[in-house]
Amino acid sequence: MSGWIFGFAEGKADGDASMKELLGGKGANLAEMSAIGLPVPAGFTISTDISTYFYENDKNFPAGLSDELQAALTNLEQSSGRSFGAGPKPLLVSIRSGSRASMPGMMDTILNLGLNDKTVHALATETGDERFAFDSYRRFIQMYACVVMGLDHAHFEDILALVKSAQGFEFDTNLSVDDWRGVIQSFKAFVEEETGTPFPQDVQNQLWGAITAVFSSWMSRRAVIYRGIHNIPDHWGTAVNIQAMVFGNLGGDSASGVAFTRNPSTGEKQLFGEYLANAQGEDVVAGIRTPHSLTEIAMKLTGDEHASLESCMPKMFGEIVDVASRLERHFCDMQDIEFTIENGKLWILQTRSGKRTADATLRIAVELAQEGIISKSQALARIDPYALNHLLHPTLAPSNEQPVIVTGLPASPGAACGEVCFSPERAEVLRGEGRATILVRLETSPEDILGMDAAKGILTARGGATSHAAVVARGMGKPCIVGAGSLKIDYEAGEFTVMGRPFHEGDIITLDGSTGRVYAGSVQMNQPEFSSHFATLMEWADNTKAMKIRANADTPADARLARSFGAEGIGLCRTERMFFESDRINAMREMILAEHKLARREALEKLLTMQRADFIEMFEIMAGMPVAIRLLDPPLHEFLPSQKGDIEQVASAMGIEAERLQNRVDLLYEVNPMLGHRGCRLAISYPEIIEMQARAIFEAALAAEQSTGSKVTLEIMVPVISMNKEFIFVKECIEKIAGEVDEEQGTKIEYTIGTIIELPRAALIAGELAENAEFISFGTNDLTQTSFGMSRDDATGFLRAYERLRIMPDDPFVTIDEDGVGELMKIAIERGRSTRPGIEIGICGEHGGDPKSIQFCNQIGLDYVSCSPYRVPIARLAAAQATK
Amino acid sequence: MSGWIFGFAEGKADGDASMKELLGGKGANLAEMSAIGLPVPAGFTISTDISTYFYENDKNFPAGLSDELQAALTNLEQSSGRSFGAGPKPLLVSIRSGSRASMPGMMDTILNLGLNDKTVHALATETGDERFAFDSYRRFIQMYACVVMGLDHAHFEDILALVKSAQGFEFDTNLSVDDWRGVIQSFKAFVEEETGTPFPQDVQNQLWGAITAVFSSWMSRRAVIYRGIHNIPDHWGTAVNIQAMVFGNLGGDSASGVAFTRNPSTGEKQLFGEYLANAQGEDVVAGIRTPHSLTEIAMKLTGDEHASLESCMPKMFGEIVDVASRLERHFCDMQDIEFTIENGKLWILQTRSGKRTADATLRIAVELAQEGIISKSQALARIDPYALNHLLHPTLAPSNEQPVIVTGLPASPGAACGEVCFSPERAEVLRGEGRATILVRLETSPEDILGMDAAKGILTARGGATSHAAVVARGMGKPCIVGAGSLKIDYEAGEFTVMGRPFHEGDIITLDGSTGRVYAGSVQMNQPEFSSHFATLMEWADNTKAMKIRANADTPADARLARSFGAEGIGLCRTERMFFESDRINAMREMILAEHKLARREALEKLLTMQRADFIEMFEIMAGMPVAIRLLDPPLHEFLPSQKGDIEQVASAMGIEAERLQNRVDLLYEVNPMLGHRGCRLAISYPEIIEMQARAIFEAALAAEQSTGSKVTLEIMVPVISMNKEFIFVKECIEKIAGEVDEEQGTKIEYTIGTIIELPRAALIAGELAENAEFISFGTNDLTQTSFGMSRDDATGFLRAYERLRIMPDDPFVTIDEDGVGELMKIAIERGRSTRPGIEIGICGEHGGDPKSIQFCNQIGLDYVSCSPYRVPIARLAAAQATK
Repeated sequence: MSGWIFGFAEGKADGDASMKELLGGKGANLAEMSAIGLPVPAGFTISTDISTYFYENDKNFPAGLSDELQAALTNLEQSSGRSFGAGPKPLLVSIRSGSRASMPGMMDTILNLGLNDKTVHALATETGDERFAFDSYRRFIQMYACVVMGLDHAHFEDILALVKSAQGFEFDTNLSVDDWRGVIQSFKAFVEEETGTPFPQDVQNQLWGAITAVFSSWMSRRAVIYRGIHNIPDHWGTAVNIQAMVFGNLGGDSASGVAFTRNPSTGEKQLFGEYLANAQGEDVVAGIRTPHSLTEIAMKLTGDEHASLESCMPKMFGEIVDVASRLERHFCDMQDIEFTIENGKLWILQTRSGKRTADATLRIAVELAQEGIISKSQALARIDPYALNHLLHPTLAPSNEQPVIVTGLPASPGAACGEVCFSPERAEVLRGEGRATILVRLETSPEDILGMDAAKGILTARGGATSHAAVVARGMGKPCIVGAGSLKIDYEAGEFTVMGRPFHEGDIITLDGSTGRVYAGSVQMNQPEFSSHFATLMEWADNTKAMKIRANADTPADARLARSFGAEGIGLCRTERMFFESDRINAMREMILAEHKLARREALEKLLTMQRADFIEMFEIMAGMPVAIRLLDPPLHEFLPSQKGDIEQVASAMGIEAERLQNRVDLLYEVNPMLGHRGCRLAISYPEIIEMQARAIFEAALAAEQSTGSKVTLEIMVPVISMNKEFIFVKECIEKIAGEVDEEQGTKIEYTIGTIIELPRAALIAGELAENAEFISFGTNDLTQTSFGMSRDDATGFLRAYERLRIMPDDPFVTIDEDGVGELMKIAIERGRSTRPGIEIGICGEHGGDPKSIQFCNQIGLDYVSCSPYRVPIARLAAAQATK
Repeated sequence: MSGWIFGFAEGKADGDASMKELLGGKGANLAEMSAIGLPVPAGFTISTDISTYFYENDKNFPAGLSDELQAALTNLEQSSGRSFGAGPKPLLVSIRSGSRASMPGMMDTILNLGLNDKTVHALATETGDERFAFDSYRRFIQMYACVVMGLDHAHFEDILALVKSAQGFEFDTNLSVDDWRGVIQSFKAFVEEETGTPFPQDVQNQLWGAITAVFSSWMSRRAVIYRGIHNIPDHWGTAVNIQAMVFGNLGGDSASGVAFTRNPSTGEKQLFGEYLANAQGEDVVAGIRTPHSLTEIAMKLTGDEHASLESCMPKMFGEIVDVASRLERHFCDMQDIEFTIENGKLWILQTRSGKRTADATLRIAVELAQEGIISKSQALARIDPYALNHLLHPTLAPSNEQPVIVTGLPASPGAACGEVCFSPERAEVLRGEGRATILVRLETSPEDILGMDAAKGILTARGGATSHAAVVARGMGKPCIVGAGSLKIDYEAGEFTVMGRPFHEGDIITLDGSTGRVYAGSVQMNQPEFSSHFATLMEWADNTKAMKIRANADTPADARLARSFGAEGIGLCRTERMFFESDRINAMREMILAEHKLARREALEKLLTMQRADFIEMFEIMAGMPVAIRLLDPPLHEFLPSQKGDIEQVASAMGIEAERLQNRVDLLYEVNPMLGHRGCRLAISYPEIIEMQARAIFEAALAAEQSTGSKVTLEIMVPVISMNKEFIFVKECIEKIAGEVDEEQGTKIEYTIGTIIELPRAALIAGELAENAEFISFGTNDLTQTSFGMSRDDATGFLRAYERLRIMPDDPFVTIDEDGVGELMKIAIERGRSTRPGIEIGICGEHGGDPKSIQFCNQIGLDYVSCSPYRVPIARLAAAQATK
């Protein structure tokens, strides 16, 4: 015995559930169930080692396998009390593949093996059912001829159809024993004609043929493609399970069915499943007959008037309930169980963790933990944080049949439906009329922000996962699809076309922001509900995680939302967002157009009042929690119009000459705005701007402290730092204003000032920066752009080819690139902490809401992550999972 | 004695030339000259320690200084045989500052101290020249009153002018002894009136006043500003030199003069200098009388009919020749010597290394080495590599008096003069007519390249040191000034204005690319000449340096130039530059507009022929040397027009619809082209492009090997790599083509393929890259842009403020930023060499021609630097200097 074959029979087994690598998932679980005494039909598993040997040796088997197989067969004959290839009780077996990973439907199966012209008679005699025996034989011939001998399934169906039509029959059940005999003759004749050899009668030949075929199916085209998609390595190989057949179609005391230990839709703790009396397992799945519910309760709920298994076979039902309970406790998860009742005896054919909805996943995990079956941390680990999106956003009803008109990048989850609208201004007008819109743009820019807020969803032709549209939409919790490249937009004509099909302003479309699909017309939606299980899970997450979770929030509304989702502070408040509201953008533009410091200060004075009011409200909402405010970041041209028509309009609204505005726009033009005059570079060119911001922040903090009676934990963030002296310059400006406000108000403002690390050079000099910077926040969006030298706005085009060619594993704008960007983060952390031990370090880029990235952030020792409010629950969960 | 004062007298001295820190430059050299026995007036130096004490102690002196000073005075009285403040031979002294660094004219000097109402008579008696004595006294009063007592110089001039006009005199020399007495009375009366105290008669008081004043002048406004500009630290402080006066104005056997040991203009080995008989040193400098040449040869050359010192005081001249020769050998450099002849006795007042022209610097260094006075490596160290620019490019005549109309960034050295021309096409037309043009543009783009080639010089309103215009112009060796921000260009009107002053197409302007100055009209120029000394120096450099020097050369013409400047290979051949010539750009555009692979291949076929021909020529020129060729780098939109008018024109020339071209232009539009679809990203999207390039390269290499009989050392560079799989993809493409060509031609092409590291991520993963990359070349232009997150095209605006605020020490686009970019280079080198020991590593960014960066490249162990052909000699020298 070389240990290639692992037997199992009720009460004992060579293997167990932990041996999935060697025995495959199915084989390991069959062994485990047998070992704990469940009624599993006896059998044995040929291990994946043989699969490996098979492919390494030109599809040959090792010398000793044959002897081992005979011994296993002999054992199987003994434990089943049957004889392979002989009466009176012939042993029939199933041959099934079983890999480490589930590959449903991808590989071959053969049933009823062991039947031949002789044993079919023994089976008929033993069961007293000739029709059953011959039907089983013809099924075996058909399956074997297709799978092992490579004949086309359709030919056999044709022969059967011919026989039926000759007799005027509609269903297989109309055929008599003699009819089946005739079919079998025709099948065998066809096989001999096609292959030149008769259908094998020697059961040993049958068995080796089947084993070879199942191992061979590991490298079938469809299996290889499936593994490619699911990243399953080819070298894993498959095991082969050979098991005594049991039959659910041997009369009224037989049945087949499927049972879930809990409801897979709702997660409710109640046996859930279906069965068919006098039927084989494949009939339940095939859908030819409609199966019935297992339980009385389900029966009543669905209004089915048939008898439930609970009522017609109460003993069997009781056994199933027991087995279900045992299996769930044993495998510590909700199970999906296949069973067969053969002449009043229950057989369990398979068990596995059951598939379930996102809602059910959550409820089951929480309840299993509450029942003590799993630990809280196991419960937390069970929930895929990405799947929480389904719980937090509206989703499309699964039965949707509307045509998909285009697919883009799923940039912000949720579903939305509305009229096509091409201009942000129009979206605002339509919102005023109570109409829902989808804003369709080539791309969005900061001046579109109010229109984006007015729309129900956003669709752009350009951009990637961290393009402006994507970032803003996620912040707003609005569905957004970007980079839908085949969209041709004609703003003037008020239409877009996809593959020649036109859509006009006002046409209804629906976005699924979780898949990137755009549908014509409206699609039914499911609204999210927050269950008590969700709240429980979040509480456990908070008690488990090491990192704090903050939110990126730019407005009081954002801040409120962030708190409602459980944020523990604000990690990024982008002050410029406040300037885009209609009453403010003009003051901002006056500031930009000012021709000398004095005029600029006047305009800034107006902005000061507005910004201070916003800050007061935000500080009040976040009372007691840290609020990190970023100084002005974008280049000034983002606040000015760029198109000729818009320039004329804005100039006239401002009461200035269009030429003057045009001149300023020309002067501010940048070839690469991402690498341009922004962040602290603005602060250094125009210190009066950040002086205004600092004053607004400090005055607001003092006012909020008065109104709430609670201390403001204020952090001021300096963006786009690449040099230490830049930071020192800005810090000194801020300190000067703090001193002024202290003096004016007779107080001493407490605050910290830190740097955003969003440029590679800043990461490298983090040690030096930390001499002055009191905290560090990683701006991983820009750090990714500059590390890769890749503009998030322009990368969509070539990144598609990269995905196709598998050049890039993950989109680095979604998941932190650990080897490059992550490496810079590690360097910065190490150098920053060496200068200022214990310096607070967080992340405020979009990656702060990505579970895989959160895992990385935890691993490299960040103190917090900050993400858009809607992602806060996801981040809380991911952070808890990361602590493992 | 606390060692604050260091005496010197002929033949002995407390200090020496090495003690510049303590004694200042002047004091150290006076000590050294005294020690080696030269005739230096005796004196002593108060060290810089006193300066430090003075400023640390509220402008007080240490207690013991007074005693030490008295002792030093006593010594001085002894060695000079004179008495301080008493007859018959009164000791008069000069008090001069002297810092570690030369600060000409910035600090105070007092002469003739020791004169008072009594000693003036003794002086008159001693010299037998009353007029001389009283003139000296009135000069002393005037100087002392101004420097020590803070009175205004103009008042004394007024008094003197009054006396002269009252008598009807024109010159000071008209005044009699009695007139001078009267002037002295008036001066003293004025001093007493203004200050309330009489002019000090106590010579000790005079001395302390003068010492205090000279130390105080270290912190005078003008001195502080001067130090700020020249980066001289305030804490260095100054020394004070007190020295017995000698007089060159005591009659016909007295004189004062200046001698250079070699000709400071040409470097020729011949004493060169001027003198005035019967005059003080300040008269030679002041320019009131015209001095005469020292030597007979110079006398004849200048046509001066006066007697030379050589002819009228042959003994003195002989002594000066001896002293000059001794000083030159002693200080190992050409010296600038001040001397005074007092009644037939030669005194040396000062010696220092003489200022000289770039030409003279070179010749003197080479000849000093050839004479064995200095070593070859000292000679190499004497030449400022930056100054070589003057030897390699035309320069403006120094006497230029044309007005400067604007100053921009000096982007490419040399001078050029021509008609203002606003369009590249027009520049080409004008060149055809034999007219010289200066191309004036907002900024340039790759499509302007032929016009840039046609122009004599380039002037842009935007851009920085590595903007397109700057890089291309340097490559062409053409003067270029960029970022002249106050230039307002109106292409349509065909004019530009500076501060309201208009210049029209056709107006003549002159550029000085070495200073950034633009002159109206034409300015006389000096053409460069290559001396044998230059060739000798370069030979020494090549024998000394460790790194190889290659050139960035894109065309056969560049390659020829590179060899003529001594390049040892090509480090960067930008293949796309070949596509911009008029017959090629259309094929390139057809390729870009192709709607499927087949059409693209057809267009590529045309480009193949052209590119192959270029490569053959380049390989032939560079026979036996390495040639590194970069695959296509810029985004495709750079090859298409962007303005509406141009689009229509190009479309019509190509015989296609303008709309089609416009659509393609729109589709290729990028927000941040620097971070866009370029380099290997193009290769991955359109592998057929690099397949064409690889074929052109390989076929050309084989053809060139046949024609020259010498092996081509071929290196293929893959640009814009950020991921390992990108490199592998491109490498496999190239290998495929190599295999094809091998098979077609029955040969085996030898080549290496490597990566350009120009993105931070590439530097971080250099270890992984080096598994496949056979060499590394740093593209430091882009590496700087991405490390700093700073676009070279947009940074000009804010970098000015950065310079003003001293936030950035050097322009990182000119000199490698060692802390950031350099750090990434070090990481890449260490990781690259750990995977592939001995991997060839070079640099092909603009920094490869910057001496300070070359120093760094040598230090971190690069194998070569590559720079534009015109910088090759600079690089050879800098590389030699770096080996120290």
